[in-house]
Amino acid sequence: MAKGQKTAITPTREENFPEWYQEVVKAADMAENSAVRGCMIIKPHGYALWERVQQELDARIKREGVRNAYFPLLIPLSYISREAEHIDGFAKECAVVTHHRLEQDKEKGGLKPSGELQEPYVIRPTSETIIGESMAKWIQSYRDLPMKLNQWANVMRWEMRPRVFLRTSEFLWQEGHNAFASAVESRADALRMLDVYADVAENVLGVPVIKGEKTPEERFPGAIATYTIEAMMQDGKAVQYATSHDLGQTFSKSCNITYQDRDGKEHYAHTTSWGMSTRTIGGLVMVHGDDDGLILPPSIAPEQVVIVPIIKDESQKADLLTYCLELEMRLIEQGVRVKLDSSDARIPDKMWGNIKRGTPVRVEIGPREMEEGMLTYVMRHKGPKEKVSETRDAFVSNIASLLAEMQSSLLEGKRKEMMDRILDVSSVEEAREVFDKGHMGFVRMDYSLAKGDAYTKLENVHALSARCLPFENDGEKVLIGKSY
Amino acid sequence: MAKGQKTAITPTREENFPEWYQEVVKAADMAENSAVRGCMIIKPHGYALWERVQQELDARIKREGVRNAYFPLLIPLSYISREAEHIDGFAKECAVVTHHRLEQDKEKGGLKPSGELQEPYVIRPTSETIIGESMAKWIQSYRDLPMKLNQWANVMRWEMRPRVFLRTSEFLWQEGHNAFASAVESRADALRMLDVYADVAENVLGVPVIKGEKTPEERFPGAIATYTIEAMMQDGKAVQYATSHDLGQTFSKSCNITYQDRDGKEHYAHTTSWGMSTRTIGGLVMVHGDDDGLILPPSIAPEQVVIVPIIKDESQKADLLTYCLELEMRLIEQGVRVKLDSSDARIPDKMWGNIKRGTPVRVEIGPREMEEGMLTYVMRHKGPKEKVSETRDAFVSNIASLLAEMQSSLLEGKRKEMMDRILDVSSVEEAREVFDKGHMGFVRMDYSLAKGDAYTKLENVHALSARCLPFENDGEKVLIGKSY
Repeated sequence: MAKGQKTAITPTREENFPEWYQEVVKAADMAENSAVRGCMIIKPHGYALWERVQQELDARIKREGVRNAYFPLLIPLSYISREAEHIDGFAKECAVVTHHRLEQDKEKGGLKPSGELQEPYVIRPTSETIIGESMAKWIQSYRDLPMKLNQWANVMRWEMRPRVFLRTSEFLWQEGHNAFASAVESRADALRMLDVYADVAENVLGVPVIKGEKTPEERFPGAIATYTIEAMMQDGKAVQYATSHDLGQTFSKSCNITYQDRDGKEHYAHTTSWGMSTRTIGGLVMVHGDDDGLILPPSIAPEQVVIVPIIKDESQKADLLTYCLELEMRLIEQGVRVKLDSSDARIPDKMWGNIKRGTPVRVEIGPREMEEGMLTYVMRHKGPKEKVSETRDAFVSNIASLLAEMQSSLLEGKRKEMMDRILDVSSVEEAREVFDKGHMGFVRMDYSLAKGDAYTKLENVHALSARCLPFENDGEKVLIGKSY
Repeated sequence: MAKGQKTAITPTREENFPEWYQEVVKAADMAENSAVRGCMIIKPHGYALWERVQQELDARIKREGVRNAYFPLLIPLSYISREAEHIDGFAKECAVVTHHRLEQDKEKGGLKPSGELQEPYVIRPTSETIIGESMAKWIQSYRDLPMKLNQWANVMRWEMRPRVFLRTSEFLWQEGHNAFASAVESRADALRMLDVYADVAENVLGVPVIKGEKTPEERFPGAIATYTIEAMMQDGKAVQYATSHDLGQTFSKSCNITYQDRDGKEHYAHTTSWGMSTRTIGGLVMVHGDDDGLILPPSIAPEQVVIVPIIKDESQKADLLTYCLELEMRLIEQGVRVKLDSSDARIPDKMWGNIKRGTPVRVEIGPREMEEGMLTYVMRHKGPKEKVSETRDAFVSNIASLLAEMQSSLLEGKRKEMMDRILDVSSVEEAREVFDKGHMGFVRMDYSLAKGDAYTKLENVHALSARCLPFENDGEKVLIGKSY
């Protein structure tokens, strides 16, 4: 497939990074655009990655004492109107349901909407308003707190410039909504859930992130603090990887979420919300892919090892498959996610297919290797030529550490890349020079300097934004960069 | 809570079955109605049951070689129009999206829809049309077959008479869509997936079902055969528990799903679709609940055992909790889903709370039991008075068989109840007499007799329908009953 080409993916990252991204997603068979404006179809390989995120994140969310629930897809327009009164900047690019029936269109043929609704509904862009309504009913006393709810759901925000996984009109996510008696608790919770996200980003997806707080301008509408984990793509742009909001009493006041405390008095609750979405998958591709396609850190890979029997002679087929099956079983016993690819496809197609889909370890076994109790393996992140020959027994013994090494080597390698691309500057002018020279990364400067006309102009000229005030700088510094 | 009452739930099943159902759902804290017409809020205890169905069914679906994917929520109106041309009876009670923005309503205040769409979208009532579009692109050659896809999704059908879990405008389900080269394969697949559903219904949810084929009048629009599993509620009405459709070439022709066979010729594929939804949870309640609330078969129970420490004296609290924690740990080691309820709630509230939520086994441990290495347990299906005293060690050794016995006793008990309520009749007149006398159950008669004016009148007078042609009668008999 990649014969006669230098790389399996064209263009390369250097030639055109956004196009390279689209091609990697396509070559890995992860997703494609649909006939519905801005909505994608998540194909099985892409969805398997999301399922891995779901499993790992859901287990962690439950460990925090959060319970899953499900709230309606549709939100009455009056709820949104009420929020819009309370909260500036409330998103208005929403899909609106106005009818509940179809009827024959006698003029044009086909069907047309009928049964107009008295009150239109909005497809949820997020669920603070509708979950807040329920919390107001369910929370009566301090005994009902904390209340911790999460839902796995689809949401919709009409996107004018969609990009598969990163920015789509419909996307999948989880949204957590917690309520507490005190401001101290809601603040601690928002920070705690950010830690959970950072754990999943780094230790499952292998994507290093910087934890910090958003500037007031970049906060979620209604939040008193928005915390974020920011990842850096290979072109130096940021992807906001997940966010966690301390909503203070904004939503408890607009939804009337109150509780009676031990003293018999009514108080407004303090709430948080926090979400991680399918955009994590887009970030994964842009952080780890190379010019041959996707590279999957083992923790996120639906298949960590693929076994490819190299069958040259039909007479050896049965023995070879048995040898491969034994290996498969022994790897499964080790808790490894493994696939034996005994399909009829051509060997080079299998090889390049697995490379492009990012399978961490590819094992090839031919008749000679079988006779010698051997196998050959290639680690996806180490170039297609670095084949290692080893006994089958040794491979089974070593597989756990091979995978663990790959995981940490990818994470730490990418962390170093990111850190090397964060330049410290001491003025807006210096930041301007750095980006004028084509810096692909972030700059870090005193937050107190990031204001005024020169700063605003800098942001506009280079399409920059304040990514966050990193925790490690105690909120005194701001990270500035381009973003998806 | 139930003091001074004979039962924890009012009304009882006998007094008013539909109201009893609503009260059980409420008392078990499973779900409630929302402000959105016909849409429910699934509360944590209800959602935990659905998550158990998801886990068990998803594992089985994957074992069949089906891969999960995700397709857009919205379907272009033109797709639906095209189907409506091909297929009679295509559902038209759909939520229709006509706008993609909100703007200030300067006349009335608040927000109003704006940004009218050139082509309206329909919120998926089911996804044959949109998945068919993709299959048409993805399937080129016989090598691409079979193609087996599933999605876990929300769907929407505007309901005029909603009933929580059983019939809601929005509901959650999985919908599988498979494509094959031959009619033999699609027929076998539709039957195979029905077996998977029956396995989940009986061995996970503990709900006995009758497998059969729908009559042509009751088929899914476009299907050449619809297979169903039918469950019987305690009031004798049916719930269609899951269906599996052999769509033949109906959708492959309307969506143009073709493949090139080995002979180089183009053929239309043969497709199936199959779905199981949150209505299974409603059926579970109506099959297994009693006048004290929900009863959960152990396989579906999120918590199989609850441990309630009976603390009378604060000085013993620490020791008692340690004793209970040890029990909890040992049960977890046995693979039991267990909860230690050490909350501050009153003991009778805890007891009745667990009864109403249907926890299979409730363990109570007081100081004296602790000192003697004992405990007391009550099985939910055996009346609140049947307490058993046993050593902690014996309980741990026996728990697996206790749960297994409860599971099979519930299933077989309900199967017998259902079978006892199926009356064989030899004519429409006899069927009419049976229902005139208030029969709460099904009748079974020769399918050849179930037609004509007298039969139609019977259906109308008693709100009956043909539930299915049971496989066990080789399609010669038809089961007739009321249904939800």
